[in-house]
Amino acid sequence: MSIVVVGSVGIDTIETPFGREEDVLGGSASYFSLAARNFTDVHMVSAVGGDFPPAYSELLRSEGVDTEGIAVGDGETFRWEGRYDYDMKDPETVSVTLGVLGSFDPVVPEKSRDANYLFLANTDPEIQIKVLEQVNSPRIVACDTMNFWIENKPEELKKLLGKVNILIINDSEARQLSEEPLMLRAAKKIMDMGPEFLIVKRGEYGALLFSREDLFFAPGYMLEQVLDPTGAGDTFAGGFMGYVASRDKDLDFAVFKKGVAYGSVLASFTVEDFSVRRLGSLQKEEIEKRYGQFLRLSTM
Amino acid sequence: MSIVVVGSVGIDTIETPFGREEDVLGGSASYFSLAARNFTDVHMVSAVGGDFPPAYSELLRSEGVDTEGIAVGDGETFRWEGRYDYDMKDPETVSVTLGVLGSFDPVVPEKSRDANYLFLANTDPEIQIKVLEQVNSPRIVACDTMNFWIENKPEELKKLLGKVNILIINDSEARQLSEEPLMLRAAKKIMDMGPEFLIVKRGEYGALLFSREDLFFAPGYMLEQVLDPTGAGDTFAGGFMGYVASRDKDLDFAVFKKGVAYGSVLASFTVEDFSVRRLGSLQKEEIEKRYGQFLRLSTM
Repeated sequence: MSIVVVGSVGIDTIETPFGREEDVLGGSASYFSLAARNFTDVHMVSAVGGDFPPAYSELLRSEGVDTEGIAVGDGETFRWEGRYDYDMKDPETVSVTLGVLGSFDPVVPEKSRDANYLFLANTDPEIQIKVLEQVNSPRIVACDTMNFWIENKPEELKKLLGKVNILIINDSEARQLSEEPLMLRAAKKIMDMGPEFLIVKRGEYGALLFSREDLFFAPGYMLEQVLDPTGAGDTFAGGFMGYVASRDKDLDFAVFKKGVAYGSVLASFTVEDFSVRRLGSLQKEEIEKRYGQFLRLSTM
Repeated sequence: MSIVVVGSVGIDTIETPFGREEDVLGGSASYFSLAARNFTDVHMVSAVGGDFPPAYSELLRSEGVDTEGIAVGDGETFRWEGRYDYDMKDPETVSVTLGVLGSFDPVVPEKSRDANYLFLANTDPEIQIKVLEQVNSPRIVACDTMNFWIENKPEELKKLLGKVNILIINDSEARQLSEEPLMLRAAKKIMDMGPEFLIVKRGEYGALLFSREDLFFAPGYMLEQVLDPTGAGDTFAGGFMGYVASRDKDLDFAVFKKGVAYGSVLASFTVEDFSVRRLGSLQKEEIEKRYGQFLRLSTM
């Protein structure tokens, strides 16, 4: 079953204690798509400028991602420069240029409007709603958001949450959105806002999956090398949604749990190298091998 | 199989956003013992002053804990006053009086010297070594430590680590001790210092168990109410060691994994109320029920 993802496609410059990479492919939709394409068809909806390197479009297409919904606008591509210190969390933004994403008016291509799965990556909730309204009757809609929208567009965000099945956010966002410090209470309050499922990403500590009746705790994958954490959360979402969409016929909590595990596995590859370098060249066998190790890690 | 624990017994005053309790029972050995006694015999080695409330000794004894090794010294009992803010982590120490623990020279009672299990709670590594030398031939020795000793007594700590089977510390301590930010590398370096097993406590995020060949990730238990996190780590250690000692005949990695799970379960009770209130009155059935929920939480 195919997935439509709306999100950013950009050019990143990233500095960590382990290196610096300039003008590499970035953006939430890029990471999401390169993770999800391991399981199913992915159609991207985004915008870039005339300066977007053709090699990056070609990279996405060669990995089977449908890029027809990436509009080439009159202006610059979104650019972000970030710097991580040794804790490899919460990068400092050195500079950011919104470019064509500053006036992004998303259009889902006609052929993608019957997609059953829709992922609305972190962006203005008004844009997320606009995309949602263009997809005819999606079976599962998942979205991400961030502290900026929780603070600055609470009404629009609430409207969006009333329309999605799954919210995928990190733990500080879950606490902020719910105004509850304890995660179990936070999850209940958030599910009362609309989503039937909540996934809380906790970086190296793994992820939590909540439904109204059930709860699952997925460990973080242990790595000996983390070069660049950028895109781990969007990769997680892509691995999760991709797996879930591939199990379209028998969706239940067990499938969602496996989706969370695959999300963690995919994210573990992303952080091993800069940008999408590791993710872009990933083989099915590598994913399955690490998934097996992941199961062993958490099995009593 | 009986366990000897050496650690603090004290009188705490604790303030959290949810209340304030004055002059309640505290100390690492108290929490450890009240957790471990659910599985096996526990002998405490500690010191208190003449001001120690008889009701607290009675509480420990009535729960089956052997308190003969608690010396009553000429001086005051160890007192700690701490204050937590809303994140319920890293309490601010409002005041601390070492009292008799300032000149603590531990003596393991004759009858306890044949114990097979020994837990050295966080204290000066020189004291930990002194106790270790008084126990004849323990099968499993576990210890805790903290940043203060890592910084101020590195040589003594290294000597201790060469003599223990299991080190139980939190993640910032593991990073500091190993000087490695990534936990997998940190664990390897620490096991090279001596311990065959390393347990890394991560608070609400659960715990990691490492051996040279294996790895297990235990989730944190999800609670709707956390009133006072004091003692959670020592309770965890007590639940872990108690369970492991009760399985003396068939120790292997699977038993250690279950021990970590029981440690997490016991700690989840401790934080639900102030001091040892919840832990002191715990029933076997409550523990088993929550252990079952814990398994469900992490099973794919």
